[in-house]
Amino acid sequence: MKDIVEHRTWRYAAKKFDPQKKVAQTDIETLIEATRLSASSYGLQPYHVFVIADPQLRERLKAASYGQDQITDASHLIVFAHASDFGDELVEDFVENLSQTRNIPLEGLQGYAAFMKSRLVALPRESKGDWAARQTYIAFSNMMQAAAELHIDSCPLEGFQAHQYNEILGLGAKNLNAVVALAVGYRSPKDETQALPKVRKSKEALFTLI
Amino acid sequence: MKDIVEHRTWRYAAKKFDPQKKVAQTDIETLIEATRLSASSYGLQPYHVFVIADPQLRERLKAASYGQDQITDASHLIVFAHASDFGDELVEDFVENLSQTRNIPLEGLQGYAAFMKSRLVALPRESKGDWAARQTYIAFSNMMQAAAELHIDSCPLEGFQAHQYNEILGLGAKNLNAVVALAVGYRSPKDETQALPKVRKSKEALFTLI
Repeated sequence: MKDIVEHRTWRYAAKKFDPQKKVAQTDIETLIEATRLSASSYGLQPYHVFVIADPQLRERLKAASYGQDQITDASHLIVFAHASDFGDELVEDFVENLSQTRNIPLEGLQGYAAFMKSRLVALPRESKGDWAARQTYIAFSNMMQAAAELHIDSCPLEGFQAHQYNEILGLGAKNLNAVVALAVGYRSPKDETQALPKVRKSKEALFTLI
Repeated sequence: MKDIVEHRTWRYAAKKFDPQKKVAQTDIETLIEATRLSASSYGLQPYHVFVIADPQLRERLKAASYGQDQITDASHLIVFAHASDFGDELVEDFVENLSQTRNIPLEGLQGYAAFMKSRLVALPRESKGDWAARQTYIAFSNMMQAAAELHIDSCPLEGFQAHQYNEILGLGAKNLNAVVALAVGYRSPKDETQALPKVRKSKEALFTLI
């Protein structure tokens, strides 16, 4: 029980990473599997995740991120892109997976598929993007938490030019939009922010118990 | 390492809760503290969280949630509401907290405060709400994960009439908007969904390693 609060206290937004320290591939695979298991609305997982080690690519992304050193000094940069638009295929791919995974005849899932389509595919494009972005943040938060459980440092990043990320990663043609990123690696001993006390709202300011 | 994937595999969206089993107050406090420590953009935490045990209130919320039994059968219902609008006070309250927590003179933080205001308070109202909702999902996902770590069952809920929640909880006057909820408690042995294999996209469909 104590652990639950402990690794959340240990986690902080690392400002300086040790560029020599790399996250082991087995840990990257754990982060991927943990994130893959994330909850999402109807289970549709309307996003794609880029796990980027390539230094040249990260240099280009850094230039689109106000030059933040975490982009290149961390071991890996994880970029989360939400579906910015989608049609029936989002639901149909899911229903096919559901049918196979749970051994349910596809015909028996047509009503459910039609319901999901009516709720989601029928939305205006902007609302689709908003809905998908929120689901993406569930996965993003889950990965940040999984990293903390592994005592892997991370820095959440929203400060980048999404349209430039989209161009660099070729996302536009796939109807994806880069929305948030997580640099993962190991903190530098020189990162002075690690010693600073956390600034958080009080329990009383943030929660109402009824 | 194995634990990290194990409790994420154990977690599922509980459909039937055992209405007799209550989450201990110490565990509720752990969930609150874990959630309080969530990351957010600039650390601003633009949301409020309602932890609801009251049965009458939950009956009213259930009526605004298509009658979903999890609302009343779970031990507690946690409702996450994001700031739907805000002015300078969001930044000023934070800067005051930052000043006190880290013992920095307020005068030294005015430039930083002005920067945050220019980035956030200047946004159109709808963009403010979108930004705040995404931060709220970080906290929401974090709490869902913390519950799983405690082996407390949960059901994430987006299927409710937000405007009715806002009215019932008196959120409009506070510029808050109910966006997502988490029913927490213990699964009923009769919940057949607990035995079903998870439906998730494959690693290959969801991730690109570069």
